[in-house]
Amino acid sequence: MPRLKLTIEYDGSRYVGWQVQRNGRSVQAELGDALGKLLGAPVEVVAAGRTDSGVHATGQVVCFDTERQLPLKAYHRGLNGLLPEDIAVVRAEEVAAEFDPRRWSRGKRYRYRVSNLPSRSPLRRHTHWEIYAPLQVEAMARAATALLGRHDYSAFRASDCQAAHAVREVRRLSVEGTAGDAVAFVVEGTAFLKHMVRNLVGTLVEVGKGRRPEAWVAEVLASKDRTRAGPTAPPHGLVMEEVFYGDGPPPRQAGDAADIFDGGD
Amino acid sequence: MPRLKLTIEYDGSRYVGWQVQRNGRSVQAELGDALGKLLGAPVEVVAAGRTDSGVHATGQVVCFDTERQLPLKAYHRGLNGLLPEDIAVVRAEEVAAEFDPRRWSRGKRYRYRVSNLPSRSPLRRHTHWEIYAPLQVEAMARAATALLGRHDYSAFRASDCQAAHAVREVRRLSVEGTAGDAVAFVVEGTAFLKHMVRNLVGTLVEVGKGRRPEAWVAEVLASKDRTRAGPTAPPHGLVMEEVFYGDGPPPRQAGDAADIFDGGD
Repeated sequence: MPRLKLTIEYDGSRYVGWQVQRNGRSVQAELGDALGKLLGAPVEVVAAGRTDSGVHATGQVVCFDTERQLPLKAYHRGLNGLLPEDIAVVRAEEVAAEFDPRRWSRGKRYRYRVSNLPSRSPLRRHTHWEIYAPLQVEAMARAATALLGRHDYSAFRASDCQAAHAVREVRRLSVEGTAGDAVAFVVEGTAFLKHMVRNLVGTLVEVGKGRRPEAWVAEVLASKDRTRAGPTAPPHGLVMEEVFYGDGPPPRQAGDAADIFDGGD
Repeated sequence: MPRLKLTIEYDGSRYVGWQVQRNGRSVQAELGDALGKLLGAPVEVVAAGRTDSGVHATGQVVCFDTERQLPLKAYHRGLNGLLPEDIAVVRAEEVAAEFDPRRWSRGKRYRYRVSNLPSRSPLRRHTHWEIYAPLQVEAMARAATALLGRHDYSAFRASDCQAAHAVREVRRLSVEGTAGDAVAFVVEGTAFLKHMVRNLVGTLVEVGKGRRPEAWVAEVLASKDRTRAGPTAPPHGLVMEEVFYGDGPPPRQAGDAADIFDGGD
């Protein structure tokens, strides 16, 4: 029975998040419904990571099994004709029967966008955290270097995070000023704790506003105390951009992947 | 009686366009309503140029007169509290009693965004013209140089354009590949005919798709024949970015400004 891997993009604004929930529409349910129409039978879809309500994706990865033998374009262009306009398949591939989008993941890259105009911007309202006070981008970029590497990120996990422990590796955390007074935070790591990316950004923004010195970030990390970090950045600035895979599951290191709440969502 | 100049941003997706119309909500009506609430009296608002349904702005300029003497922040932050989330004031200034946003304009800059991914992109659906066939960006950039300068742009005006004649000056028309397989067309000129920017883009895209040679663009311009140009690019890729002003009205040259349908809308 073929296993299909889909790379999908979505505008998370209208959804309760990736995961099926009782209180509203989820991306997972929309995708399952569209696949059900295409294949004529209910389909269970598994994703690389959850995303919260309002969080977007350009490279979420999902997989499912089917007994039907359809050409790949049916799962790409064909499925796009059945999906709502705020969800689309970017790529469809057949993968090994053992492929698991979560357990085989070797890392993920997220982008977080901040708008730093002096007042609100209608064209950025669904894609940027709007901060009106001027941010010191260079200070945030310097402070971010303390967050790189393999650490216990307990200070940056959500209080209800269910991961077994908080050791993760952050490979990249770049902070760049972009056109039109915006700031992009690009975060890449092996795996993430619940709300980790948004807590990293919220903490760096405290430095950017001049409320905290650059060295404070290293102190927060070392404290392993969530109450010391900055506020959680709002969800709508976050995009799950890419999930990285190899030819099989990665060599196991404790906590590197496979947490239910992985995803920085 | 003070005259106020407001620079405004809007997401044009929900609107019939700038101008009040019978068939739906307009940006002009929303702004008039919010100002009416702020000032306690109906307010007539005049803009630098019309924009069509779906067209966005980050730098539309409007003005109005009022007998009230409110601090400028009332017209900026205060008004933003009364406007819907898809319209906002970027800047408020008091200007000379003779200021006229259309007649004083010395030029405008528009940006047109094309997404060139192989299939649809939910996060770009309101801000980019989505073209799936690969575009030759360099060919479009070279072809665009033929459109620079002072010419009769009859080939690029809408059939119902009401301007007295079609001589305009295009100061800049740059075509650049941007991140994530997108293309940005930046067009700056003294003034524009109805649908002119969208017709210029639609024509260059014919070259980008390889359907027409680069030299064809100069032939279309010289023909002054609308039926020879490419299709009108859809409205939602267009943003009115900036209107340029000096200390008074510009030296008059026939056709340089003041057309009702100016705006490239």
